[in-house]
Amino acid sequence: MNVTVNHRTRHYRTVTFDARRNEVILIDQRLLPHQFKMAAQANYRATARAIRDMVVRGAGAIGATAAYGLAQASLAFGGRDLSRFARHIETAYQTLQSARPTAVDPVNAMNAIRRAMQSGQNVEEQQSLALAAAEQFAHDDICHCEQIGRHGARLIRQNMRILTHCNAGWLASVDIGSATAPLYAAQKAGRTFHVYCDETRPRSQGATLTAWELAQQGISHQIIADNAAGHLMQRGEIDLVIVGSDRTLGRTGEVANKIGTYTKAVLAHRHGIPFYVAIPLSTIDWNMRRGRDIPIEERNGSEVLGAWGRTGKSRELIYVRVANPASTARNPGFDVTPPELITGIITPQGIFKPEALWKNLRPRPCQDASAPVPVA
Amino acid sequence: MNVTVNHRTRHYRTVTFDARRNEVILIDQRLLPHQFKMAAQANYRATARAIRDMVVRGAGAIGATAAYGLAQASLAFGGRDLSRFARHIETAYQTLQSARPTAVDPVNAMNAIRRAMQSGQNVEEQQSLALAAAEQFAHDDICHCEQIGRHGARLIRQNMRILTHCNAGWLASVDIGSATAPLYAAQKAGRTFHVYCDETRPRSQGATLTAWELAQQGISHQIIADNAAGHLMQRGEIDLVIVGSDRTLGRTGEVANKIGTYTKAVLAHRHGIPFYVAIPLSTIDWNMRRGRDIPIEERNGSEVLGAWGRTGKSRELIYVRVANPASTARNPGFDVTPPELITGIITPQGIFKPEALWKNLRPRPCQDASAPVPVA
Repeated sequence: MNVTVNHRTRHYRTVTFDARRNEVILIDQRLLPHQFKMAAQANYRATARAIRDMVVRGAGAIGATAAYGLAQASLAFGGRDLSRFARHIETAYQTLQSARPTAVDPVNAMNAIRRAMQSGQNVEEQQSLALAAAEQFAHDDICHCEQIGRHGARLIRQNMRILTHCNAGWLASVDIGSATAPLYAAQKAGRTFHVYCDETRPRSQGATLTAWELAQQGISHQIIADNAAGHLMQRGEIDLVIVGSDRTLGRTGEVANKIGTYTKAVLAHRHGIPFYVAIPLSTIDWNMRRGRDIPIEERNGSEVLGAWGRTGKSRELIYVRVANPASTARNPGFDVTPPELITGIITPQGIFKPEALWKNLRPRPCQDASAPVPVA
Repeated sequence: MNVTVNHRTRHYRTVTFDARRNEVILIDQRLLPHQFKMAAQANYRATARAIRDMVVRGAGAIGATAAYGLAQASLAFGGRDLSRFARHIETAYQTLQSARPTAVDPVNAMNAIRRAMQSGQNVEEQQSLALAAAEQFAHDDICHCEQIGRHGARLIRQNMRILTHCNAGWLASVDIGSATAPLYAAQKAGRTFHVYCDETRPRSQGATLTAWELAQQGISHQIIADNAAGHLMQRGEIDLVIVGSDRTLGRTGEVANKIGTYTKAVLAHRHGIPFYVAIPLSTIDWNMRRGRDIPIEERNGSEVLGAWGRTGKSRELIYVRVANPASTARNPGFDVTPPELITGIITPQGIFKPEALWKNLRPRPCQDASAPVPVA
């Protein structure tokens, strides 16, 4: 993506690897949108800390970070003893996994690296294979996002007004993003349009990350309070909704995503506005049978009771308590949107009705190696 | 209402008048919920400034403040010359009106005071009549809220979970409030229940004012992000919604209220949850024929792009910029909910279907003086 920093325009990826220095390079997302900074992680323990401390977030991005972290650990190993090397890799695997224990992407990513390493006959070969597999993982993530963009861009016509919720942008992936991919592809195709970014309280990822991304890309956009989307739809000022997903049930087409997504789907349905969900295949859960079984994380109430921002020209982020000091909050982090409210799911393989995912995309026993892997 | 300040519990009204000192006494709402302070306005110009600077807000509250302000101006007049007195009153009227030029309540309230003054034969009589009329106006506001509470409390059963949006509480009235009146009446009747306060971005009146009021009253409550109500409804955790209204169309039953109200009504309708609007009769507009004609104020984008709060133990409120610095916002302040989404309108005269307001409550030419006055 094109990021304007210090009056220079160059292309940055959310996650990259400097093989010469054996460093994982991340955009420090904790500082955005007020400060843009690349943070180099000097060893796999630092990389794990960066995952834990939310320097990097988003399914694709933390998957690739863990993959690079495991490759980084392998390259840092000095000896030739294969069993000591295996123990070293196991330690790094555990360290990187425990940095975000509930996430499935780092596990899937690191398992792919370990599988690739198995065909290496010695430490050096395994090191090369680990690095190649990590680069392949990151490349595939970008490639899937490009495919999502190609399919999704067909939905975006000239002068459309598009609503987004939360951030499923390139900051959540290695590059390009899922929900934002159709926007970037439509822009490349020369179409102009306007994006309304839901603020996405309580963590405001729409007002901070998505708005920042769109500003960097030069895409026309405005931030709105989460309360305003219904009014804009009622007045005929929104033509299309595109959101991402944290987990989509392959059997039912139900979509778990950031809290507030369900509300936007209900509103879009009432107004006959197309509502699309853009996802890489890795977020499809082929096993779970009912959306009600998806665990909804109850997050800390402090997110609802206040806000992070900065005063004046300071770059320092501070937390202010907004709410009544004597009151508490409930803070469910996600909600589940049923398939009847979803016009289509935009995947790297094409756009499908949510109920048709199972028929069209489910992994079958005899598929080739490039097929989607079931998520535990 | 019972407010705990300095370990004492006593009853405060949002607006009162100290006749001995000729002062209008207001709760300074700009400092809430972080600081409770009564602010005495020493003359009508100070009272007008308090309206303008949002020391006091809410339809009933600013109406009563303007009424007391006009009485205060009359009492401050020293001479016996009736025409000089009339000019003095006219100046005060204009000053108080221009403090919140778009509001209709101060105008209606001050017109009532001037009508009452007309039967006075000299300055002294007119001064007494002005004060009595202002006290009557405040008394009527409280009385209407009590009636709303009595009717609305019948809807609240033991252990219900009730959603509110924004603040139509006693801070917006002289006392008791409209949307909160049923809660306070049900509490008085010994029922226990739980209230979810929508944060109500961008100005967060739910998280600040409503939560503060409920905490003072000892009513069980939690603040939720505006995004969370849909999820809670889906999981069967909300039984009833009560909101206020800035303007209700008597001819159609359409309700204009704080942005986000429409969204909550759409969600409640989908889930078969009763959705009620509590209003004093003064907020009914008997003239306008279509909700689409209600002007929707576009407020300053800075409200959406940041938040007001305090850090640590400081009582000082500060503004933090949350959103991407290079992005702008759209900020419609209100939305319009159609009658088919509204279960009933709770008024001082009883609970009515929104379409039945016109048949049951519209002012008729030959009604007595206590009938509701059409709002221009």
